[in-house]
This record gives sequence, structure tokens and C-alpha cells, in this order.
Amino acid sequence: MKSEKLILVTNDDSVSAKGIHALAEVASKFGKVVVVAPDKPQSGMGHAITINHPLRLNKIELFGELEAYSCSGTPVDCVKLAIYEVLHRKPDLILSGVNHGENSSTNVLYSGTMSAAIEGAMEGVSSVGFSLADYEPNADFEATKHFAELLIEKALNFDFPKGSCLNVNIPKLKQEEIKGFKICKQAHAFWADRFDKRKDQFGRTYFWLTGEFSGVDKRPDTDLHALKEGYVSVVPTLYDLTAYDKLIHFENWNL
Amino acid sequence: MKSEKLILVTNDDSVSAKGIHALAEVASKFGKVVVVAPDKPQSGMGHAITINHPLRLNKIELFGELEAYSCSGTPVDCVKLAIYEVLHRKPDLILSGVNHGENSSTNVLYSGTMSAAIEGAMEGVSSVGFSLADYEPNADFEATKHFAELLIEKALNFDFPKGSCLNVNIPKLKQEEIKGFKICKQAHAFWADRFDKRKDQFGRTYFWLTGEFSGVDKRPDTDLHALKEGYVSVVPTLYDLTAYDKLIHFENWNL
Repeated sequence: MKSEKLILVTNDDSVSAKGIHALAEVASKFGKVVVVAPDKPQSGMGHAITINHPLRLNKIELFGELEAYSCSGTPVDCVKLAIYEVLHRKPDLILSGVNHGENSSTNVLYSGTMSAAIEGAMEGVSSVGFSLADYEPNADFEATKHFAELLIEKALNFDFPKGSCLNVNIPKLKQEEIKGFKICKQAHAFWADRFDKRKDQFGRTYFWLTGEFSGVDKRPDTDLHALKEGYVSVVPTLYDLTAYDKLIHFENWNL
Repeated sequence: MKSEKLILVTNDDSVSAKGIHALAEVASKFGKVVVVAPDKPQSGMGHAITINHPLRLNKIELFGELEAYSCSGTPVDCVKLAIYEVLHRKPDLILSGVNHGENSSTNVLYSGTMSAAIEGAMEGVSSVGFSLADYEPNADFEATKHFAELLIEKALNFDFPKGSCLNVNIPKLKQEEIKGFKICKQAHAFWADRFDKRKDQFGRTYFWLTGEFSGVDKRPDTDLHALKEGYVSVVPTLYDLTAYDKLIHFENWNL
């Protein structure tokens, strides 16, 4: 008899975000779900881990019958704590999200949602991060749930190569308007960062990050392009940052 | 006449760490140095950025005659603020570190030091992160300064390919014991994460990250291997996380 699949669900928007409840609901169709997610928003935390102070883990009842914990740390802390202190084994699948807001292109580096999935890949676990291109707390996750279900079914039943995870972004469209999935490359695009510079009530200057996302990548097979065309983008993502094609170039520096 | 080079120096151990003072000292041999670094330790912050609250920037006099600022944010925040609010242009070189502690292998993902360099690469600026394999606050940076000087000279005068940066790790050895530089690949190694689980003074459980680094990569051309052999490891590092060699594999899922 095949044993039930164990699925860890986490995110970066915290246990109270609508997106993680949508994802946990879909995941629970496929096996035993355990939720371990941040107790407060952790957007933009990237691959941060908590080294210099201890972490708290609290059992919560926000997810109905599902076993769920809130954690005082980052998304990557949640994955580590879940594997080593909650599950005491590696799950069959780690799902992160659904993020409120797109994590396409270079946003993968800033994204706590995707860093949790990348941490999962580092642990050798099949991992998928889901993000909906809608920042609203009350975003509509119906289309996302449909496509997440299709993808989770494949992730559990097809070969998931070690060392990689998937960065899945869903456009803000109705289900019938979405054209399907597209396997893509991470677009080369950038935040043209600017800071809102103001004086506080004490006359001291502060800076608040803002900016516009600037797509400079003309390739037709990127995630940004797929999203614009109405597809769900799926980028196979890795944690080996070696610039293999630059090794020879730097050899020629004769250091 | 060739104009003076503009060099941004940052780190993740904060403006008061010995390592950044060593790096700023070496850098100042090559041009005008501006320091923008965190006002408190930010180890393990990865590529985190500060979205939900404002940042402070304070001019400081900790670096003698060098222009220097402490920033309330993460290393990546420091790079963004430096370019857009301090320098108002892209510098010729971004140097991050010298980190107190090794950032070889998969540590590149957790490292604030390297994330600052990766952010520099995303901005199209030649960037190098330096880390010494010694966690001590009072570590000896003499050998590091020698090798950093050799490398900075090359970085400023040789072609530095866009989209990449360098992850440089120096072994904890005397200068004469170090065999030179080696261009390497990021080793596949992992933290066998464990948590120190205790009760606090109120009887509540807390978890504190610990663990052992476990090298599983037998390739002879990795950074971990080079360091063990007594070389300074230099890994060309990128921010495009696409698993190019897995695109076909996932196409075959027929999503």
C-alpha cells in the first residue's frame, strides 16, 4: 500500500494571508498537509535566516483540521524548523505561497516565498513556489487554485530533478482567460530603484524603498513575457549560482 | 585624463567590524572610496530588502578621512541607497566584506556579504564579495589585505563580464602559506541543520539554529576543495537562477 504523501506548506505573507489558505486547501487534496509559516509578513526577506536570536513556534488553529504552526522567523527558518523540529523527516513536497504579488524575473532573489522553495531544493525535497500577480490582501485565488492543483499533481507523480525547484507565477486573470502553463527562463529585468525621501516629525530624513520594474529582456521565452501573454509561468530554478560560462573568462585574468 | 575610480564598500557585519576597515583601507589605494554599510550586524540576511518600514542613513566618522555612512537596513538596502541616494551614480566597483567567516559553497545564498555583491551585479556594476574563514571579531586580515589588493587591481583593469560578480574566500592561513588564487565552482554542500531546543525562564520552548556544514561534493574544482588545499577561492557568481539544463525535463511534464 502506498503511504500518504506528506506536504509542507509555507509562505512569506504569514499564516493569516489569504494565499496560504488557498494553497493549503488545494494541497490537502493530495495528502497530509502540515503548515509552518511566519507569524508576521516577511515579504522581501530573501534567503534570510535567523542566527543571532532564538525562534518561537506556536501551534495554531487557523487552518481548520490541518496541523499548523506559526513561526517567529523568516520563510527559510520555517522550512528548517519544519523539517528538523516538526516533521522530523523530509516531506514529499514543499509548497510555498500563494504569494500576494508576482515573483517573476529577478524578484526571485528578494522573494521569501521563493527562498523557502529554494531552501527546500537544497534539502533535496521537491519544492514549488506559487505567486499571484495581485498584491491585494483580498485577491481572488480561484484561478490560482485550479492551476496549482494541476501542477501539484504533476510534481507528486513525475520525476522532480534534485537540486531544482519551480517558480510558478499566475497572471491576474480569470481562469478561462489563462492560456495554460509555459516553461520559461527568468527574465533579466530590474527595479529602477528610487527612494521616497522625506522628513519625519522630528525633522530627520528617512528613505523608503519604491521604484518601477523595468523589463529589458527581449527574449520571447521569459517568465515576464509568458505572464504578459496570459500564461502561468514556470521557471525551473536552482541554488547553484556558479556562472559556469564565465569560469574561463576569469581564468584569463591570471590571478 | 583618466578620472579617479569610485569604489563603494559595504558588508554585513556592520560599520564597526574589523573586516570592513581592512577592505576600505585596501580599496582606498585604487580611488575614491565611499562606505555605506549596516549600523548593526546583518549576517545571514541573504538578499533581504526592507519594504515595510523606512531606512535611516547617518554620516559617520569611523573611517578616518573616507566618506562613510551607516544604514539601518540590510546589505542589499545599503547598495541600493548608496547608488540612488548617496553616490547618485553607479560606482566603478562594489566591494563587500571582508566578512568575518567563510561564505563558500551554498552559504552564498544566506550571506548578506555576497547578496550585496549580487545586487551590485544586478545593477550592472563590477562587484566582489570577500570573506575570511575566521569568525573571530579580532581576526587577522593581513593576508586577506594582500590578496584583496591583487584582486581589486585585476577587477578594475580587466574586463568584468556584466551579470556576474565574484565570491572570494580566503583561508585562515598566514600569507606565505596561501598558495594563490583558484577559480572555482560553488560546492554542493549543506548545513545539517539542527536546533538547540530549550525552555526559557518562563518555561516556554525556543529554538536556536545550529548545525554542521556537510561537504558532499567530490569534484576537485570547488571552492570548498580549494580552501582546504590552501588557495583563495574565487567563484564567478550570477543572479540568473534559471536551471537551464532542466527546461526540457519540465517541458516533458506536459503541463
